[in-house]
Amino acid sequence: MDFHRLTEGDMPGFLESLPAMQARFTAFDALEVSEVGDGNLNFVYIVTNRRFPEETVVVKQAVPYLRVVGESWPLTRHRMDIETAALRHFRALCPQHVPEVFHADADRSLVVMQRLREHRILRGALIDGQLFPRVAEHLATFMARSLFFSSDFYLQPAAKREAVKRFTNVELCKITEDLIFTHPYDDSSTNSYNEALPRTAINRIQHNPHLRAVVGELKYAFMTRAEALLHGDLHVGSVMVNANETFVIDPEFAFYGPMGFDVGVLLANLFLGWCGHGARAGAESAATQRWLLDSAAQSWEGFANQFTALWRQHEEDSGFIGCDLDGHSRAMFRDAFMRRLFDDTLGFAGCEMVRRVLGLAKVAEIAQIEDLQTRAGAEIRALRIAERLLLERRAATSIHQVLDWVRA
Amino acid sequence: MDFHRLTEGDMPGFLESLPAMQARFTAFDALEVSEVGDGNLNFVYIVTNRRFPEETVVVKQAVPYLRVVGESWPLTRHRMDIETAALRHFRALCPQHVPEVFHADADRSLVVMQRLREHRILRGALIDGQLFPRVAEHLATFMARSLFFSSDFYLQPAAKREAVKRFTNVELCKITEDLIFTHPYDDSSTNSYNEALPRTAINRIQHNPHLRAVVGELKYAFMTRAEALLHGDLHVGSVMVNANETFVIDPEFAFYGPMGFDVGVLLANLFLGWCGHGARAGAESAATQRWLLDSAAQSWEGFANQFTALWRQHEEDSGFIGCDLDGHSRAMFRDAFMRRLFDDTLGFAGCEMVRRVLGLAKVAEIAQIEDLQTRAGAEIRALRIAERLLLERRAATSIHQVLDWVRA
Repeated sequence: MDFHRLTEGDMPGFLESLPAMQARFTAFDALEVSEVGDGNLNFVYIVTNRRFPEETVVVKQAVPYLRVVGESWPLTRHRMDIETAALRHFRALCPQHVPEVFHADADRSLVVMQRLREHRILRGALIDGQLFPRVAEHLATFMARSLFFSSDFYLQPAAKREAVKRFTNVELCKITEDLIFTHPYDDSSTNSYNEALPRTAINRIQHNPHLRAVVGELKYAFMTRAEALLHGDLHVGSVMVNANETFVIDPEFAFYGPMGFDVGVLLANLFLGWCGHGARAGAESAATQRWLLDSAAQSWEGFANQFTALWRQHEEDSGFIGCDLDGHSRAMFRDAFMRRLFDDTLGFAGCEMVRRVLGLAKVAEIAQIEDLQTRAGAEIRALRIAERLLLERRAATSIHQVLDWVRA
Repeated sequence: MDFHRLTEGDMPGFLESLPAMQARFTAFDALEVSEVGDGNLNFVYIVTNRRFPEETVVVKQAVPYLRVVGESWPLTRHRMDIETAALRHFRALCPQHVPEVFHADADRSLVVMQRLREHRILRGALIDGQLFPRVAEHLATFMARSLFFSSDFYLQPAAKREAVKRFTNVELCKITEDLIFTHPYDDSSTNSYNEALPRTAINRIQHNPHLRAVVGELKYAFMTRAEALLHGDLHVGSVMVNANETFVIDPEFAFYGPMGFDVGVLLANLFLGWCGHGARAGAESAATQRWLLDSAAQSWEGFANQFTALWRQHEEDSGFIGCDLDGHSRAMFRDAFMRRLFDDTLGFAGCEMVRRVLGLAKVAEIAQIEDLQTRAGAEIRALRIAERLLLERRAATSIHQVLDWVRA
């Protein structure tokens, strides 16, 4: 089928043709449609009935190119199949943290889904000084459930290997492989540097063979270790919140990869926020900084506790390693596994932090600092934290020690 | 299509119907057919023209059950598609070490291939005291080429991820997951123990939580790490040799897994041979033992040298980790990678050794020792080596130190 990008004008007629929308809208003659996509990839429309504003949905459509660049960077629309399948999969596991899919259309590469009317993107909310007490707890639940239930600790091998095939996501993985794991270390032309960031700070990353060997191992892990179905881009811009609820959105990067990647990207974004908010004056910034580090600790600890609880709960007579003949083997395996996962998490967090300073996509908390010297201060801080995460991750005794590194 | 197992009687007519065989046999009226399958899975026929014995092929057919058990253990015939694809893939990379496929028939789940007339299975040859000077060199080449050219160091991500899907081999992987990584530690009913093997020696493996945590990590690596297309069962019974040539056969267990598994299974079988031959008297056994350890060293070192040479040779401007801005990064990454691969290799070797003593399938070098006490001596030696490989692998400084552990 030839691809047709729906316009605002097409939207009312298109939605009216869908049985699922007949049940959701009382009429289609007063729909307000606005394009709100601010990501790099897709078009996103909010459609609302002017008469009954609670009648509202989001329509997300993939185009066969990278939106931010244009048709010169082709990208297959297969990513929308992945995103839809991932949304449904995550929703089934965590209905309270994932928006509902009302309709998916593979030919048009679009999905019609629940609009989160009362929620906003976490990153912007934090920049505005809003703090949410339960976000870390909710994200810990999302990560524990999404990673556990897609892993070999829960699925039978046949189902797991089928899922790996289904969620093969070559193009979007390639973006991560390049933009997170290669270009920032490569002095690539896709990088962009704050002009006030000293070259010595950049070289300290790009010319350190120890650090680059570690990043190489993490890139290799990203490309070869099919541990669980990852969200694949779990930063604070993929999270929508209000005072009581937390939703994870935009899983187009979903694929089977190393569990520590999702957890690490989340921690990195909290640490990057800490660096950015630390460059602002005032009590509000200090409170946000505290919130960010508290949330980092709660995210890791909540995740680890819930993940191991699910694991113990679903361990049958013959667990992953077999029977526990001496009564200590399973616990010892679990401890070794969680230790490795913690190391991975810190390593991937380091990669994400370097990328957000040297690579193509920045984080607003730092990039929006107007004074370039001040911004460079925050960036140097982020690079130092990243360096330590990459080089000393195996020596970290707990998440609290890592928070000391961040504060140092 | 309904499955029909070809019998000896069917064979001449069947082969005559194949164009590829018209070119290989001058006539079909004097074919001698004999079933020689001694494996657990398939039927294997040697077909020879009595008048011209150089006109000879092997026909291998998979049946929809585990041959050694019978129809009560169903197994899909998909494994023959995997075996055929793997044979062709390996042959293209190493024509001198892999038999040629003349004809493959997916409906009948059979393959007609080159018969290695002048070659015999390495395991049996070694038991008869025959030694072959170039086997280790040849196997090192096979491993280096098969593992390198299917890895992320050579293939583009899209081709690699497609190959992972194509070689998804759920059923045969499950056999390995159970029989190598789980049952031997589980006191499972599929195990079989030499009655003279003391229970304390068995418990020392099955009740050691440190060891079982390590085996759990290796099982997890086997199930999650899609590094390269493995042979999957590279023991000395999958190798055919004569004085000058070495062939690798029977890749039905092929799948994308951790590279160290193939190398480790090979080393384990050389070490198991050392334990078995050490229980025999005489100068011939001592020579075989020396050959086995020399071959282990040459296999690892030859593999590591050739693998890293291929890697350097195929590293383009932007290598796996990106540009080498400081001139040391790529070497450091390669060194770290090879060190991890060595650790994996030793760990998987330990698993294979435990399995061959406690688990379902034994090795003839040990299992054929008639005196059960003498056999138990060889088995205890094998278990002690395995234990050290599993627990101390990260401390091993070289393959030569590992050989000292074997001799200890």
